Amino acid sequence: MHYDNHNIFAKILRGELTCVKVLESKKVLAFMDFMPEADGHVLVVPKEAVAEIFDLSDIAGAICFHTIRRVAIAVRAALKPEGILVTQLNGVAAGQTVPHVHFHVIPRRADEKLKPYKRTIAKLGKLESIAQLIRIQLEQSSELI
Amino acid sequence: MHYDNHNIFAKILRGELTCVKVLESKKVLAFMDFMPEADGHVLVVPKEAVAEIFDLSDIAGAICFHTIRRVAIAVRAALKPEGILVTQLNGVAAGQTVPHVHFHVIPRRADEKLKPYKRTIAKLGKLESIAQLIRIQLEQSSELI
Repeated sequence: MHYDNHNIFAKILRGELTCVKVLESKKVLAFMDFMPEADGHVLVVPKEAVAEIFDLSDIAGAICFHTIRRVAIAVRAALKPEGILVTQLNGVAAGQTVPHVHFHVIPRRADEKLKPYKRTIAKLGKLESIAQLIRIQLEQSSELI
Repeated sequence: MHYDNHNIFAKILRGELTCVKVLESKKVLAFMDFMPEADGHVLVVPKEAVAEIFDLSDIAGAICFHTIRRVAIAVRAALKPEGILVTQLNGVAAGQTVPHVHFHVIPRRADEKLKPYKRTIAKLGKLESIAQLIRIQLEQSSELI
Protein backbone atom coordinates (compact mmCIF):
# COMPACT_ATOMS: atom_id res chain seq x y z
CA MET A 1 0.00 0.00 0.00
CA HIS A 2 1.47 3.38 -1.01
CA TYR A 3 1.53 6.31 1.36
CA ASP A 4 -1.08 8.95 0.61
CA ASN A 5 -0.53 12.31 2.30
CA HIS A 6 -4.27 13.01 2.17
CA ASN A 7 -5.27 9.95 4.20
CA ILE A 8 -7.50 10.55 7.23
CA PHE A 9 -4.75 9.88 9.81
CA ALA A 10 -2.35 12.28 8.09
CA LYS A 11 -5.10 14.91 8.27
CA ILE A 12 -5.68 14.17 11.97
CA LEU A 13 -1.92 14.37 12.67
CA ARG A 14 -1.79 17.77 10.90
CA GLY A 15 -4.81 18.97 12.89
CA GLU A 16 -6.96 19.30 9.77
CA LEU A 17 -9.45 16.80 11.17
CA THR A 18 -10.45 16.36 14.79
CA CYS A 19 -10.20 13.20 16.88
CA VAL A 20 -10.99 12.05 20.40
CA LYS A 21 -7.45 12.01 21.75
CA VAL A 22 -6.25 9.91 24.67
CA LEU A 23 -2.48 10.53 24.50
CA GLU A 24 -0.02 12.49 22.36
CA SER A 25 3.77 12.81 22.33
CA LYS A 26 6.25 14.16 19.78
CA LYS A 27 6.31 10.86 17.95
CA VAL A 28 2.89 9.26 18.40
CA LEU A 29 -0.83 10.00 18.74
CA ALA A 30 -3.43 7.70 20.35
CA PHE A 31 -7.13 8.36 19.83
CA MET A 32 -10.49 6.60 19.86
CA ASP A 33 -11.42 4.70 16.68
CA PHE A 34 -14.63 6.41 15.59
CA MET A 35 -15.85 3.15 14.05
CA PRO A 36 -14.90 0.85 16.95
CA GLU A 37 -14.90 -2.94 16.80
CA ALA A 38 -15.66 -2.90 20.55
CA ASP A 39 -16.22 -0.17 23.15
CA GLY A 40 -12.83 1.28 24.10
CA HIS A 41 -11.11 0.59 20.75
CA VAL A 42 -8.05 2.88 20.58
CA LEU A 43 -5.74 3.58 17.63
CA VAL A 44 -2.02 4.17 18.17
CA VAL A 45 -0.60 6.11 15.22
CA PRO A 46 3.09 6.98 14.82
CA LYS A 47 3.77 10.38 13.26
CA GLU A 48 6.21 8.92 10.72
CA ALA A 49 4.61 9.13 7.29
CA VAL A 50 4.77 5.49 6.19
CA ALA A 51 1.95 3.23 5.05
CA GLU A 52 2.98 -0.17 6.44
CA ILE A 53 5.07 -1.76 9.18
CA PHE A 54 7.81 -2.72 6.69
CA ASP A 55 8.90 0.93 6.45
CA LEU A 56 8.47 2.08 10.05
CA SER A 57 11.77 2.96 11.76
CA ASP A 58 12.93 0.97 14.78
CA ILE A 59 12.76 4.05 17.00
CA ALA A 60 9.17 4.79 15.96
CA GLY A 61 8.34 1.10 16.46
CA ALA A 62 9.82 1.15 19.96
CA ILE A 63 7.82 4.25 20.84
CA CYS A 64 4.69 2.63 19.41
CA PHE A 65 5.27 -0.45 21.55
CA HIS A 66 5.70 1.70 24.66
CA THR A 67 2.53 3.62 23.82
CA ILE A 68 0.52 0.48 23.01
CA ARG A 69 1.52 -1.00 26.36
CA ARG A 70 0.61 2.19 28.26
CA VAL A 71 -2.73 2.45 26.44
CA ALA A 72 -3.48 -1.26 26.98
CA ILE A 73 -2.78 -0.94 30.72
CA ALA A 74 -4.98 2.18 30.91
CA VAL A 75 -7.82 0.56 28.92
CA ARG A 76 -7.66 -2.49 31.17
CA ALA A 77 -7.83 -0.35 34.30
CA ALA A 78 -10.53 1.97 32.94
CA LEU A 79 -12.89 -0.53 31.30
CA LYS A 80 -11.95 -3.86 32.89
CA PRO A 81 -12.36 -6.03 29.78
CA GLU A 82 -11.43 -9.70 30.20
CA GLY A 83 -8.83 -9.44 27.42
CA ILE A 84 -7.10 -7.03 25.05
CA LEU A 85 -6.33 -7.67 21.39
CA VAL A 86 -3.57 -5.74 19.60
CA THR A 87 -3.58 -5.82 15.79
CA GLN A 88 -1.64 -4.16 12.98
CA LEU A 89 -2.83 -4.63 9.39
CA ASN A 90 -0.73 -4.30 6.23
CA GLY A 91 -2.39 -4.31 2.83
CA VAL A 92 -6.02 -4.52 1.72
CA ALA A 93 -5.88 -8.32 1.96
CA ALA A 94 -5.09 -7.95 5.68
CA GLY A 95 -7.97 -5.49 6.17
CA GLN A 96 -5.97 -2.23 6.09
CA THR A 97 -8.16 0.71 5.05
CA VAL A 98 -6.01 3.79 5.86
CA PRO A 99 -2.57 4.04 4.19
CA HIS A 100 -0.77 5.28 7.31
CA VAL A 101 0.69 2.62 9.62
CA HIS A 102 -1.34 2.16 12.83
CA PHE A 103 -2.01 -0.25 15.68
CA HIS A 104 -5.39 -1.23 17.11
CA VAL A 105 -5.84 -1.78 20.87
CA ILE A 106 -9.21 -3.52 21.24
CA PRO A 107 -10.89 -4.59 24.50
CA ARG A 108 -12.20 -8.15 24.37
CA ARG A 109 -15.05 -9.36 26.53
CA ALA A 110 -16.17 -12.95 27.03
CA ASP A 111 -18.86 -13.96 24.53
CA GLU A 112 -18.79 -10.55 22.82
CA LYS A 113 -18.12 -10.69 19.08
CA LEU A 114 -16.19 -7.85 17.47
CA LYS A 115 -18.31 -5.49 15.38
CA PRO A 116 -17.57 -5.57 11.65
CA TYR A 117 -14.81 -3.05 10.96
CA LYS A 118 -15.64 0.33 9.42
CA ARG A 119 -19.41 -0.12 9.52
CA THR A 120 -20.89 1.78 12.46
CA ILE A 121 -19.89 5.28 13.54
CA ALA A 122 -19.90 5.64 17.33
CA LYS A 123 -21.68 8.51 19.07
CA LEU A 124 -19.24 11.29 19.92
CA GLY A 125 -20.52 11.62 23.49
CA LYS A 126 -19.90 7.95 24.15
CA LEU A 127 -16.38 8.09 22.65
CA GLU A 128 -15.61 11.16 24.78
CA SER A 129 -16.80 9.54 28.00
CA ILE A 130 -14.78 6.36 27.36
CA ALA A 131 -11.72 8.42 26.39
CA GLN A 132 -11.99 10.39 29.61
CA LEU A 133 -11.87 7.17 31.67
CA ILE A 134 -8.76 6.07 29.75
CA ARG A 135 -7.09 9.50 30.10
CA ILE A 136 -7.57 9.44 33.88
CA GLN A 137 -5.71 6.13 34.03
CA LEU A 138 -2.93 7.41 31.75
CA GLU A 139 -2.48 10.49 33.95
CA GLN A 140 -2.29 8.37 37.08
CA SER A 141 0.39 6.18 35.53
CA SER A 142 2.43 8.98 33.96
CA GLU A 143 4.96 9.18 36.78
CA LEU A 144 5.67 5.48 36.61
CA ILE A 145 6.83 5.48 32.99
CA MET B 1 -3.41 -14.61 32.58
CA HIS B 2 -0.71 -15.76 35.00
CA TYR B 3 2.70 -16.86 33.83
CA ASP B 4 3.21 -20.61 33.85
CA ASN B 5 6.81 -21.76 33.58
CA HIS B 6 5.68 -25.06 32.05
CA ASN B 7 3.92 -23.46 29.06
CA ILE B 8 4.89 -24.70 25.61
CA PHE B 9 6.83 -21.56 24.64
CA ALA B 10 8.84 -21.62 27.86
CA LYS B 11 9.75 -25.23 27.04
CA ILE B 12 10.75 -24.28 23.49
CA LEU B 13 12.87 -21.37 24.81
CA ARG B 14 14.64 -23.75 27.22
CA GLY B 15 15.22 -26.26 24.41
CA GLU B 16 13.01 -28.90 26.03
CA LEU B 17 10.73 -28.92 23.00
CA THR B 18 11.73 -28.48 19.39
CA CYS B 19 10.47 -25.85 16.94
CA VAL B 20 10.98 -24.85 13.32
CA LYS B 21 13.13 -21.79 13.92
CA VAL B 22 13.50 -18.86 11.53
CA LEU B 23 15.49 -16.42 13.70
CA GLU B 24 17.00 -16.27 17.18
CA SER B 25 18.86 -13.61 19.14
CA LYS B 26 19.70 -13.19 22.83
CA LYS B 27 16.32 -11.64 23.53
CA VAL B 28 13.87 -13.18 21.06
CA LEU B 29 12.99 -16.34 19.14
CA ALA B 30 10.92 -16.53 15.94
CA PHE B 31 9.57 -19.85 14.73
CA MET B 32 6.80 -21.34 12.61
CA ASP B 33 3.40 -21.74 14.29
CA PHE B 34 2.77 -25.49 14.07
CA MET B 35 -0.98 -24.85 13.92
CA PRO B 36 -0.88 -22.01 11.38
CA GLU B 37 -3.84 -19.79 10.52
CA ALA B 38 -2.29 -19.39 7.04
CA ASP B 39 0.80 -20.78 5.31
CA GLY B 40 3.83 -18.83 6.56
CA HIS B 41 2.40 -18.00 10.01
CA VAL B 42 5.38 -17.09 12.23
CA LEU B 43 5.46 -16.51 16.00
CA VAL B 44 7.77 -13.91 17.53
CA VAL B 45 8.41 -14.76 21.19
CA PRO B 46 10.47 -12.58 23.56
CA LYS B 47 12.58 -14.51 26.06
CA GLU B 48 11.29 -12.44 28.99
CA ALA B 49 9.07 -14.68 31.12
CA VAL B 50 5.84 -12.66 31.17
CA ALA B 51 2.36 -13.73 30.15
CA GLU B 52 0.90 -10.56 28.62
CA ILE B 53 1.93 -7.31 26.95
CA PHE B 54 1.17 -5.31 30.11
CA ASP B 55 4.28 -6.72 31.80
CA LEU B 56 6.74 -6.80 28.88
CA SER B 57 9.67 -4.39 29.30
CA ASP B 58 10.13 -1.53 26.85
CA ILE B 59 13.48 -2.93 25.71
CA ALA B 60 11.99 -6.36 25.01
CA GLY B 61 9.08 -4.66 23.23
CA ALA B 62 11.45 -2.65 21.06
CA ILE B 63 13.38 -5.81 20.15
CA CYS B 64 10.11 -7.58 19.39
CA PHE B 65 9.06 -4.74 17.08
CA HIS B 66 12.42 -4.88 15.27
CA THR B 67 12.08 -8.67 14.91
CA ILE B 68 8.44 -8.52 13.79
CA ARG B 69 9.39 -6.01 11.10
CA ARG B 70 12.34 -8.11 9.90
CA VAL B 71 10.22 -11.26 9.85
CA ALA B 72 7.34 -9.48 8.08
CA ILE B 73 9.72 -8.17 5.39
CA ALA B 74 11.22 -11.65 4.96
CA VAL B 75 7.81 -13.36 4.81
CA ARG B 76 6.65 -10.81 2.23
CA ALA B 77 9.76 -11.41 0.09
CA ALA B 78 9.67 -15.21 0.49
CA LEU B 79 5.95 -15.92 0.05
CA LYS B 80 4.62 -12.81 -1.65
CA PRO B 81 1.27 -12.63 0.15
CA GLU B 82 -0.91 -9.62 -0.69
CA GLY B 83 -0.95 -8.54 2.96
CA ILE B 84 0.46 -9.27 6.41
CA LEU B 85 -1.48 -9.25 9.67
CA VAL B 86 0.30 -8.78 13.00
CA THR B 87 -1.63 -9.72 16.15
CA GLN B 88 -0.92 -9.98 19.87
CA LEU B 89 -3.54 -11.54 22.17
CA ASN B 90 -3.93 -10.97 25.90
CA GLY B 91 -6.33 -13.10 27.91
CA VAL B 92 -8.58 -16.01 27.01
CA ALA B 93 -11.30 -13.56 25.89
CA ALA B 94 -8.84 -12.22 23.28
CA GLY B 95 -7.96 -15.74 22.10
CA GLN B 96 -4.68 -16.22 23.99
CA THR B 97 -3.90 -19.90 24.54
CA VAL B 98 -0.26 -19.89 25.72
CA PRO B 99 0.60 -17.87 28.87
CA HIS B 100 3.85 -16.44 27.46
CA VAL B 101 3.58 -13.14 25.56
CA HIS B 102 3.93 -13.57 21.78
CA PHE B 103 3.21 -11.90 18.45
CA HIS B 104 1.71 -13.52 15.35
CA VAL B 105 2.94 -12.55 11.87
CA ILE B 106 0.35 -13.95 9.45
CA PRO B 107 0.42 -13.73 5.63
CA ARG B 108 -2.93 -12.64 4.18
CA ARG B 109 -4.00 -13.52 0.68
CA ALA B 110 -6.96 -12.10 -1.23
CA ASP B 111 -10.11 -14.18 -0.73
CA GLU B 112 -8.33 -16.62 1.63
CA LYS B 113 -9.97 -16.98 5.02
CA LEU B 114 -7.78 -17.65 8.04
CA LYS B 115 -7.92 -21.20 9.36
CA PRO B 116 -9.51 -21.56 12.81
CA TYR B 117 -6.73 -21.16 15.39
CA LYS B 118 -5.30 -24.23 17.15
CA ARG B 119 -7.21 -26.78 15.09
CA THR B 120 -4.96 -28.26 12.41
CA ILE B 121 -1.34 -29.32 12.92
CA ALA B 122 0.78 -28.55 9.85
CA LYS B 123 3.03 -31.17 8.28
CA LEU B 124 6.61 -30.76 9.49
CA GLY B 125 8.05 -31.01 5.98
CA LYS B 126 5.86 -28.17 4.77
CA LEU B 127 6.76 -25.98 7.77
CA GLU B 128 10.46 -26.69 7.18
CA SER B 129 10.30 -25.77 3.49
CA ILE B 130 8.43 -22.51 4.20
CA ALA B 131 10.84 -21.67 7.05
CA GLN B 132 13.79 -22.20 4.74
CA LEU B 133 12.42 -19.67 2.25
CA ILE B 134 11.98 -17.14 5.08
CA ARG B 135 15.47 -17.83 6.52
CA ILE B 136 17.07 -17.18 3.12
CA GLN B 137 15.43 -13.75 3.04
CA LEU B 138 16.49 -13.01 6.62
CA GLU B 139 20.09 -13.93 5.82
CA GLN B 140 20.09 -11.70 2.75
CA SER B 141 18.82 -8.75 4.80
CA SER B 142 21.05 -9.30 7.84
CA GLU B 143 23.69 -6.78 6.78
CA LEU B 144 21.09 -4.07 6.30
CA ILE B 145 19.77 -4.15 9.86
